[in-house]
Amino acid sequence: MQYPEPIERLIDSYMKLPGIGEKTATRLAFFTIDMDQDDVAAFASSLTAAKTQLHYCSVCGNITDDDPCSICTDTSRDQTKILVVEQVKDVMSIDRMDEYHGLYHVLHGVMSPLEGTGPEDLNIASLLHRLQDNDAVNEVIVATNATPEGEATAMYLARLIKPAGIRVTRLAHGLAVGSDIEYADQMTLMKAVEGRTEI
Amino acid sequence: MQYPEPIERLIDSYMKLPGIGEKTATRLAFFTIDMDQDDVAAFASSLTAAKTQLHYCSVCGNITDDDPCSICTDTSRDQTKILVVEQVKDVMSIDRMDEYHGLYHVLHGVMSPLEGTGPEDLNIASLLHRLQDNDAVNEVIVATNATPEGEATAMYLARLIKPAGIRVTRLAHGLAVGSDIEYADQMTLMKAVEGRTEI
Repeated sequence: MQYPEPIERLIDSYMKLPGIGEKTATRLAFFTIDMDQDDVAAFASSLTAAKTQLHYCSVCGNITDDDPCSICTDTSRDQTKILVVEQVKDVMSIDRMDEYHGLYHVLHGVMSPLEGTGPEDLNIASLLHRLQDNDAVNEVIVATNATPEGEATAMYLARLIKPAGIRVTRLAHGLAVGSDIEYADQMTLMKAVEGRTEI
Repeated sequence: MQYPEPIERLIDSYMKLPGIGEKTATRLAFFTIDMDQDDVAAFASSLTAAKTQLHYCSVCGNITDDDPCSICTDTSRDQTKILVVEQVKDVMSIDRMDEYHGLYHVLHGVMSPLEGTGPEDLNIASLLHRLQDNDAVNEVIVATNATPEGEATAMYLARLIKPAGIRVTRLAHGLAVGSDIEYADQMTLMKAVEGRTEI
């Protein structure tokens, strides 16, 4: 016996999502059938809308429904700083804290020899164009993740950009706020000691 | 800063699914944007199709795109037995093992005083109609879950149906195959001893 074909198709669709196996997909499919008609219609239309209306900003690579995106066109932002992140989601994480008010640039990945991702696969060329076209920028903050790939990408960017006389900085490494020294790994502890500050 | 509106709407839609919070919904939304156009379109249409084309079988309460469902109309099945389950999913679990070939009846829940679910909220009236209209049935197998609510519902059904001279049976309780006695709970062990069989 099989489920009716519409359910099978819905289960298959849910299974295409990351981290969702057959059991969860089946649970979600049955949940969907019990949902409000309106909610399901809204879900279906938001899927299509997200796919058709969104694209990457031609300036910074952030996801947007306009081009350039709302950050790039916001003249109230500090035009002298560009913060470089790996993923679109990182823009949100950083902007949410309301401490940084400059511009962004999304690389869409990091250099990773193991996965065959080189600088040419990343959104780096457009960053260099931005810096060439715009004399206002005096600092590039590289906020790639604190992984070997993130570090390597940061170093690569620094080598490209520094000769142009632009300051290149990196987010601070150290103990996470609220964390225990007991549970910190050796690398983090080392960075925390290296980067110690006067109190 | 907010995500562009199409993403926000998609995140909201994903968050309506059970067990999916904001972080997972965001991850799924970004994954959706990177999916194939065709896959997203198929996902959207399968959502709508599942909601509009499916309904419960008027005879047994199983989910179906026909009415009556393919099980109820399958004359090769044993018409003398009806197996009663709580949920549509249980029909699939039992039918998959290919050991039971009779009919089904889905209650869509169990009696639960705590949640205010009484017999009148369950698909019980239609079961009684089936038994009245159809003299062929000689056994009702109650396969509600082995929970207090499942047991209570089974007992209630037995009291309703037995007076009509129809056999009412319950799935066996005992140790799960492959399980350790050491880890079995006291109730299960008790049931396993009570229901011991000759070898």
